[in-house]
Amino acid sequence: MTSIGILGFDGRMGQAIDAAAKAAGVAVAGGIDKGDPDLVALAGQADVLIDFTAPDALAKHLDAAVAAGTPMVIGTTGLSAEDHARIDAAAQSIAIVQTYNTSLGITMLRGLVEEAARRLGPDWDIEIVEMHHRHKVDAPSGTALLLGAAANAGRGAADGQSLNRLDRMGQGPGTREQGGIYYASLRGGSVAGDHQVVFATDGERIEIGHRAENRGIFARGALKAALWLAEGRPAGRYTMADVLGL
Amino acid sequence: MTSIGILGFDGRMGQAIDAAAKAAGVAVAGGIDKGDPDLVALAGQADVLIDFTAPDALAKHLDAAVAAGTPMVIGTTGLSAEDHARIDAAAQSIAIVQTYNTSLGITMLRGLVEEAARRLGPDWDIEIVEMHHRHKVDAPSGTALLLGAAANAGRGAADGQSLNRLDRMGQGPGTREQGGIYYASLRGGSVAGDHQVVFATDGERIEIGHRAENRGIFARGALKAALWLAEGRPAGRYTMADVLGL
Amino acid sequence: MTSIGILGFDGRMGQAIDAAAKAAGVAVAGGIDKGDPDLVALAGQADVLIDFTAPDALAKHLDAAVAAGTPMVIGTTGLSAEDHARIDAAAQSIAIVQTYNTSLGITMLRGLVEEAARRLGPDWDIEIVEMHHRHKVDAPSGTALLLGAAANAGRGAADGQSLNRLDRMGQGPGTREQGGIYYASLRGGSVAGDHQVVFATDGERIEIGHRAENRGIFARGALKAALWLAEGRPAGRYTMADVLGL
Amino acid sequence: MTSIGILGFDGRMGQAIDAAAKAAGVAVAGGIDKGDPDLVALAGQADVLIDFTAPDALAKHLDAAVAAGTPMVIGTTGLSAEDHARIDAAAQSIAIVQTYNTSLGITMLRGLVEEAARRLGPDWDIEIVEMHHRHKVDAPSGTALLLGAAANAGRGAADGQSLNRLDRMGQGPGTREQGGIYYASLRGGSVAGDHQVVFATDGERIEIGHRAENRGIFARGALKAALWLAEGRPAGRYTMADVLGL
Repeated sequence: MTSIGILGFDGRMGQAIDAAAKAAGVAVAGGIDKGDPDLVALAGQADVLIDFTAPDALAKHLDAAVAAGTPMVIGTTGLSAEDHARIDAAAQSIAIVQTYNTSLGITMLRGLVEEAARRLGPDWDIEIVEMHHRHKVDAPSGTALLLGAAANAGRGAADGQSLNRLDRMGQGPGTREQGGIYYASLRGGSVAGDHQVVFATDGERIEIGHRAENRGIFARGALKAALWLAEGRPAGRYTMADVLGL
Repeated sequence: MTSIGILGFDGRMGQAIDAAAKAAGVAVAGGIDKGDPDLVALAGQADVLIDFTAPDALAKHLDAAVAAGTPMVIGTTGLSAEDHARIDAAAQSIAIVQTYNTSLGITMLRGLVEEAARRLGPDWDIEIVEMHHRHKVDAPSGTALLLGAAANAGRGAADGQSLNRLDRMGQGPGTREQGGIYYASLRGGSVAGDHQVVFATDGERIEIGHRAENRGIFARGALKAALWLAEGRPAGRYTMADVLGL
Repeated sequence: MTSIGILGFDGRMGQAIDAAAKAAGVAVAGGIDKGDPDLVALAGQADVLIDFTAPDALAKHLDAAVAAGTPMVIGTTGLSAEDHARIDAAAQSIAIVQTYNTSLGITMLRGLVEEAARRLGPDWDIEIVEMHHRHKVDAPSGTALLLGAAANAGRGAADGQSLNRLDRMGQGPGTREQGGIYYASLRGGSVAGDHQVVFATDGERIEIGHRAENRGIFARGALKAALWLAEGRPAGRYTMADVLGL
Repeated sequence: MTSIGILGFDGRMGQAIDAAAKAAGVAVAGGIDKGDPDLVALAGQADVLIDFTAPDALAKHLDAAVAAGTPMVIGTTGLSAEDHARIDAAAQSIAIVQTYNTSLGITMLRGLVEEAARRLGPDWDIEIVEMHHRHKVDAPSGTALLLGAAANAGRGAADGQSLNRLDRMGQGPGTREQGGIYYASLRGGSVAGDHQVVFATDGERIEIGHRAENRGIFARGALKAALWLAEGRPAGRYTMADVLGL
C-alpha cells in the first residue's frame, strides 16, 4: 500500500490532501510543517512526498527527497527561475511532478488554449483573468501564468514568457501592445479558483474558462499524481498532462 | 471580379451581406426577396448565391442554383432532415457551403468542444446555453445544435444527434440523463448571439463560449465563403472549416 | 441553549445543517428521516424544527409542529399552491419562516432584481438562468421562481406568477412574448447553485447574478433563521428578508 | 428645433452622436475637431454642446460654452480633480451634465451597486472588472471608477475615492486589504464596454454587470442628455440620474 508524506500539513492544501487520502484509502506516512524537525525521517518513510508550501522551503524539501530517493509532487506556486533550476537538478535523480494546478479541468484547458492560440492567429488579442479567495498572496496566479504560457506556445513564440504583460495598471494610460498577453487578478471571499482566457477580435470573442468549487479537486489531483509516481517512474520532470495521459 | 447574388436581400442578414460586400469591394449582381420573380435570372448572373432566408424557400433556391450551375452559400437555420437531403442532392452538381454559423470564432469553438468532449469522457456533463435577440424564432439556435453535434462527435456517439435532450422544461421534474446533451435558450434585447458549452463534473467546470457583437461577423464570413467557392470548387458539400482551412 | 430538530436528517441539507449547528455550538435535539416514528417526540423536544425534505411530507410535519407549538423553518422546494395554503393555516398558531433560499446573497439579489425591474420598465426583457448539480430534480429551481416573482413584483404585475413562461423549448418556434419572464435551467456536476437574471434591451444588457460555492451557506442561513425564531416570534409567516432585517 | 454642436466630431463618439442625431431628427449645428478655429462660432450657434474629447481640451471648451451661455454635455473620460474644479466653476453660469457613461443601463447599475454595498456590509469584498476594445487608452475605465465610487458611497465612506486600490499587479505579492475596492481591466478586439462588480464573501458571490453592444447606446444617451438640457435647466451640475429621473 502506497504511503504519502505531506509537507505543509497544517496548511489548507495539506489538510485537504490528508482528507482526500483518507477518503481514497491511501496511507499517510506523516505530515510536517514549518519548523518540524523530522523532514528527513518523513522523506525516508514515505513512498512519495507532496509539497504545497512556499518557495523558500523548496531547496530543503528537494534535498531531503533526493537524499532519500523519494519521488515528489510539487504544487507550490510563485516559483522563481532559480527554483525551477533546483527542480531540474533534483529531477536528475528522482521523479518529480511539478505543476501549478493539479486539476484535470485546468490541464484540459491548457491544451484548448494552446490550440486556439495556434489556430486563431495574431488578430485575436489574448487576456487572462482569474479570481481567488481574499487570502491568496501571489498575483497573477500560477495557473494564470500556465495558461499564458500555453497561449504563447500556441502562437509559436520562442520564449514562453516573453509576451507577458503584467502591469497594465502600473503603466498608466497606453494602448494595448500587439501580441501581448495581459493578466488581471481579482481577490475576494473564499473563491477556490476561477480562470478565463479571452480571445478578442473585431466583432467577436471566444472565452475559455474553468471554475473550481473547492480545494478538493486539487487535493485529489495531487493524490493522483502521487499514486502515478508511486507506480515507479524513471527520474525526470513530469507534468499533469503526463499523469492524466493527455 | 466576383459578383454575388443575395437571396433574402431585405432581411437583416441580406442587408448586412450587402454592406459587407460594398465594404470589401465585391460586386453585388443583385438581391431578391419573397415574391420577387427574377430568381432564375439572378442565379444566371451571379457567380455565387448567398441564401439566408427560411427553410420553405430552400427547394426553389436550390433548383435555380442547380439549373444555372451556380455555387451557393446556405446560412438558413432551422433546416429539417428533408432539407439536408435536398442539399445533398444538389451538391451532386454544384458546390455548396452549408452552415448554421459563418463566424471564424464559432468554427474554432466547434473544434475545441469536440476535442474537450473526446478527452474529458463521460464523467463530465454537457450543457449548452445560448442567448439571442427577442425576435429570433427558433430555439435552440442552429449554432447551439452544431455545438451539440460537435460534442457528440467528440464522445464518439454513432449518431450525431441521438443524445440531444431539448425538453428539460417540458418534461417536468426529473434527474439528468447520463450522457445527455441538454440545451437552454435565452431571448432578449438585440443580442447578436452568445453561446456557451459547459462541461461539469464533481468539483469543477469548464466553460467554452463565444460572443458575437453584431451581424457583421456573419456577413463577412458568408462573403468569405462565397469568394472561396468562386475560386472554383468541385461539386460537393462543404463547411466553414473547409473555407477557413481548419 | 437553543436546540433544533432536523427533518430530513440523512439528506444533503440535513447533514449540512447538522454540521453547521455543531460548528456554531447549537444543540441538535435530534434528526429524523423518512419512516422514522419519532416525529411527534422530536417536535416536542426541539425549540425549532428545520425542514428540508419533500412536499409530500409537509402536511405531516406541519401537524406535528402545530401540535407541539414549535416554530419551523421550511426550506423544502417545489411547493404547490395547496402546500402554501397549508403553511398559511399553520402560521395562524406558530411562527414559520418559509423560503426557497436561505442565503444572504440571494435575499439581497431579490431586492436588487425587484428594484431593477421597477426602474427599467417594459422595454427591458427579463430572462432567468440557473445551474445546479446533476441530481437536482425540479426545474426551474425554487430560487429562480423567487427571482421571477421579485421581477414581476417590481414591474407592478398584480399576480406574482402570471407572466412566467417556463416552456420556450416545449413550444417550438415562436417569438418572445412582450412582458414575459422566461426561465432556463442547466444541470451538471456538483454545482451548488448559480442564478442570473438578465435584463436586455436594444444595445445593452444588465446581468445580476449569484454563485453559491457549497451548501454550507444555505445551512448557515437556515440555522440563522432557526435562532431568530427561537428568540420568540409571534405566530405568523416570515421570510429571509425578515430574518436578515432587509 | 434643437440644434447640437459636436466637439470631437471626427472621433468615434462624435461620429456616433452625429448618426444618432440624424436618426432622431435632431439638427446638428456643426462639429469641430482638434485645431478647428471655429469653436466660439459653434458655441454661439448651437443650443447645446456635446464634448467627447480629451481632458486637455476641456478648459478651452468650457470657456467657449460659458462665454456663449450654452449648456454642455461632457462625456470625456480621464478627468483630473483640477478638471472637475473647472466644471464646477463653469456650472455657476451654465447647466452642465457631466458623466463618464451615458447609458441607462450603467446609470441603473450604479444605483444597484450602491444599494448592495450599503446592505451587504464589510464582510463582502468588492472587485470591479471591465473589458474594452484594444484601442482604449485609460485603465481602469471612467465607468469602472464611477461604479467604485457608488460602492464606496453605499458603504458610507466619507471620501468617495479613498478606498480605491488600483495597483494589485504593481504591488507584487500581498494579501487583500480589508475594505479595499480593487479594479481589473481587460483590453481586446472591438468590445464596446463590459463592466462587472463582484461582491464576494465566505461561500457566495453576487455579480452585477452591464454589457454594451455598441457605441450607439452612449450616443443616444448623450443626445437624450442634450435634449434634456435644451428644455432649459438652471445653471448647475447634473448627472445622468437627473436626466433619466432615477
